[in-house]
Amino acid sequence: METSTLLSGQTGNAPVINSGVLLNHWQAHRRLTRRTIEAFPEVGLFSFTLGGMRTFAAMVKELIVIAGPGVKGAATNEWNALEDHQAQQGTKEELLKRWDDITEQVNFYWPQIDAARFQETVVAFGQYEAPLYETILYFIDNEIHHRGQGFVYLRALGIEPPAFWDRS
Amino acid sequence: METSTLLSGQTGNAPVINSGVLLNHWQAHRRLTRRTIEAFPEVGLFSFTLGGMRTFAAMVKELIVIAGPGVKGAATNEWNALEDHQAQQGTKEELLKRWDDITEQVNFYWPQIDAARFQETVVAFGQYEAPLYETILYFIDNEIHHRGQGFVYLRALGIEPPAFWDRS
Repeated sequence: METSTLLSGQTGNAPVINSGVLLNHWQAHRRLTRRTIEAFPEVGLFSFTLGGMRTFAAMVKELIVIAGPGVKGAATNEWNALEDHQAQQGTKEELLKRWDDITEQVNFYWPQIDAARFQETVVAFGQYEAPLYETILYFIDNEIHHRGQGFVYLRALGIEPPAFWDRS
Repeated sequence: METSTLLSGQTGNAPVINSGVLLNHWQAHRRLTRRTIEAFPEVGLFSFTLGGMRTFAAMVKELIVIAGPGVKGAATNEWNALEDHQAQQGTKEELLKRWDDITEQVNFYWPQIDAARFQETVVAFGQYEAPLYETILYFIDNEIHHRGQGFVYLRALGIEPPAFWDRS
């Protein structure tokens, strides 16, 4: 069954998610990710891994360097190369502080994204070419993906993760 | 900074994602999840766990009983209680077959979702009350979340997961 033929009618064009809803959806996920960071013990956050993967702190740093410069790029079309996020160390408190700064940055730049721009093709970080809405969905999906991995780390550390459904 | 005040203007109402885009987005994720199931060895799929969590097969069964009856409920407003998905056993081949059936079911019911209905409040599976668009985003987010956990299982089994960015 070809999706393209199914969606040629009015149904495929039905508006589902607008800019305000998408921002709220992202920030709701960001609140859950923040609680996931908080749930980690300081040492485990920066040292625990499974299967040869990165620490959760390294994943969170990736989310930070994507979200902040990403939303700025979305609004201004000024894209820098993706900042290195592997080598840094730090503390849980510093990480949460950076997380909160990015939350403000997302709220600051989001309303500056021109309405028509969501459908335009952008080259995020100078290398990822896609419509802007797809780029932003990718940012959010990548966060959900890595947070899910953080949940496994927490369980393996004997810690109950925050409730997935709670986005308050 | 209050999000509500930021988004009172035109920007908050900018259409970002329509019905056809959201279907394609979901099915793209479903293709990646299918490849994740395929990457598991038969035994590991039904027996490997970390941190006292469920097997990846049990998570996939949850995704199946959500997506199929979920898209039917979205289109018809006929919601059954969420089917039990814990106790079942089976084979990888059967699981992939069920996955593919649900893919067809999503394509079948999606165009039957009335345009206005995406903004209506539904009570999914008789118990989860939310606007339909939020319910559908939850289905997708839950899939990304558990697939991310499946990636950790694969890594712990010494298997390279499929590329997260590849949705072909």
